[in-house]
Amino acid sequence: MKITKTMTILAGFALGSLLVAGAAQADDHSEFKVVINAYDTTIPELNVEGVTVKNIRAFNVLNEPEALVVEKGDKVSIVVENKSPISEGFSIDAYGIKEVLKAGETKTISFTADKKGAFNVYCQLHPQNIHLPGSLNVVD
Amino acid sequence: MKITKTMTILAGFALGSLLVAGAAQADDHSEFKVVINAYDTTIPELNVEGVTVKNIRAFNVLNEPEALVVEKGDKVSIVVENKSPISEGFSIDAYGIKEVLKAGETKTISFTADKKGAFNVYCQLHPQNIHLPGSLNVVD
Amino acid sequence: MKITKTMTILAGFALGSLLVAGAAQADDHSEFKVVINAYDTTIPELNVEGVTVKNIRAFNVLNEPEALVVEKGDKVSIVVENKSPISEGFSIDAYGIKEVLKAGETKTISFTADKKGAFNVYCQLHPQNIHLPGSLNVVD
Repeated sequence: MKITKTMTILAGFALGSLLVAGAAQADDHSEFKVVINAYDTTIPELNVEGVTVKNIRAFNVLNEPEALVVEKGDKVSIVVENKSPISEGFSIDAYGIKEVLKAGETKTISFTADKKGAFNVYCQLHPQNIHLPGSLNVVD
Repeated sequence: MKITKTMTILAGFALGSLLVAGAAQADDHSEFKVVINAYDTTIPELNVEGVTVKNIRAFNVLNEPEALVVEKGDKVSIVVENKSPISEGFSIDAYGIKEVLKAGETKTISFTADKKGAFNVYCQLHPQNIHLPGSLNVVD
Repeated sequence: MKITKTMTILAGFALGSLLVAGAAQADDHSEFKVVINAYDTTIPELNVEGVTVKNIRAFNVLNEPEALVVEKGDKVSIVVENKSPISEGFSIDAYGIKEVLKAGETKTISFTADKKGAFNVYCQLHPQNIHLPGSLNVVD
């Protein structure tokens, strides 16, 4: 943040109200809901609006939403629900997160975002191009 | 950032210059251009740099860019252009957005980002593993 | 934002030291490590936990992590390592970035994030639905 650019002179007597206002303004919590969904698509021949596409075959598992952004220092809670018909993984190596969720299971993953950067969010159980990875960005 | 909201009592003589600086600093608008592209790839056998890959077949629609990040409170404008040869959808449930864009159509989607969190940006018309979802993050 | 951490009582005469302290507080650097991985998956028939999935075939190249977020004005360094067995591209048009990395090569891409917005991060060498694009968000 370019916080310094907006700082200015504060009258000393305003400290009390400033801290209160500051505490009210700050939000150190980031809460997310991520649903893991499996998509099995087979379309021998598709014709839509005059456009033909043949032989579509794809099976993928997706984290929805896949990209998460938090502020450095935030207390982060990610409620992950696995709607895939099989077990799925949810890993973020930089934060030591490595969870397995059974079909239909929901887990809440909590951590403090004390490392700035962009980190891969991936499934440790399946190929990365089948269960597509997401990302966690910790900004300051 | 809503930095200006955290400013409090200011020595009177500094107020004028502060407001000017604050107004210049604050940016409550986020404008994006997202292009929806369809990719139809068939490669019976590919040999590149001595590496052989056989039987690549994939049809996908992508939002480019797929991940958007805004500050809570921002007035957001997303100009979405559909370069797919067929109609495509653009939905963000948390913000009540559910648009259909015909082939070649461009729409501007505007809203105020008043809900913090990460939200799925998806096509309501096609399988999610064919038209891959993106995400909207609203941070504060 | 950790705005409260940067607030303090300042007498008018303290402005100079504020600017120094402010400069120490601000973190204008964002450093990332992105690994380009190729995934070649062929599963004629998969049965896991009683669920059968047939004919999975997918070849994809992924940037891990794929989504990067920085603050406007940040000095950005992206260390990109290509673990794909062939050359891969890494382009961000808005910042004039267009790199080719040979198999096994690592490059550091540096720039100042002076344009706000969301930008596509893509491979200029291969189909976008094979080497999936990522995104760069520059927020302020």
